[in-house]
Amino acid sequence: MTYSLILLAHGSSDPHWRAPFEQLHYALAQRMQTPLRLAYMELSEPSLESSVAELAQQGATRAEVLPLFFAAGRHLRKDVPAQIEALRAAHPGLELTLLPPVGEHPAFVEALAAVIAERAGEKSSRG
Amino acid sequence: MTYSLILLAHGSSDPHWRAPFEQLHYALAQRMQTPLRLAYMELSEPSLESSVAELAQQGATRAEVLPLFFAAGRHLRKDVPAQIEALRAAHPGLELTLLPPVGEHPAFVEALAAVIAERAGEKSSRG
Repeated sequence: MTYSLILLAHGSSDPHWRAPFEQLHYALAQRMQTPLRLAYMELSEPSLESSVAELAQQGATRAEVLPLFFAAGRHLRKDVPAQIEALRAAHPGLELTLLPPVGEHPAFVEALAAVIAERAGEKSSRG
Repeated sequence: MTYSLILLAHGSSDPHWRAPFEQLHYALAQRMQTPLRLAYMELSEPSLESSVAELAQQGATRAEVLPLFFAAGRHLRKDVPAQIEALRAAHPGLELTLLPPVGEHPAFVEALAAVIAERAGEKSSRG
């Protein structure tokens, strides 16, 4: 079984907007063993569609999509699930899972608490 | 010196969009000693303007604005700095600082690495 994780960002026609996501992807890819890709929901390349097609072509059997979103708004409740459904139909050999957005993950709340504690000179509860 | 930290989210006319930010603010306020507020750049209330005005009225002398954004796009490079400038002029007794977006903070990269490691069954380098 070949597993990949796709970091999904919204996308923008502004290349300045994309740069920090590319840096984040690079920083994570450097330190993780998990094959990581960065894809965009719309407006930027590589798209989610082309990324999943490439994974399927390479024989990947399982991929998870981790949205780099703070919250599950309309995009994550409607648009992205529809994209995922269409991709499942197009690539039946690839098991595709949409994860909750990173902003809803407890580790993210921890990180935010640490950032605030640092700013405020408050001792972080993480110790 | 009275210090406050303002979590700044983009804002949306969709109340569904706001809910996770409100939950995040609540979760953080519960565990932090630092006075925390959640404000929106546009489209939602409370606005950054009304939040800062309230802090100034309450006699706050220092406030930092932490953008709940992944990246410094046009909003954080142009729109929000202009808002902050206007607020400084309107409330000279309040020292107002705009922080980099949380997405650019090392703690955030750590958190994301932990989320990915957990999904991929990979040992996190945080241990």
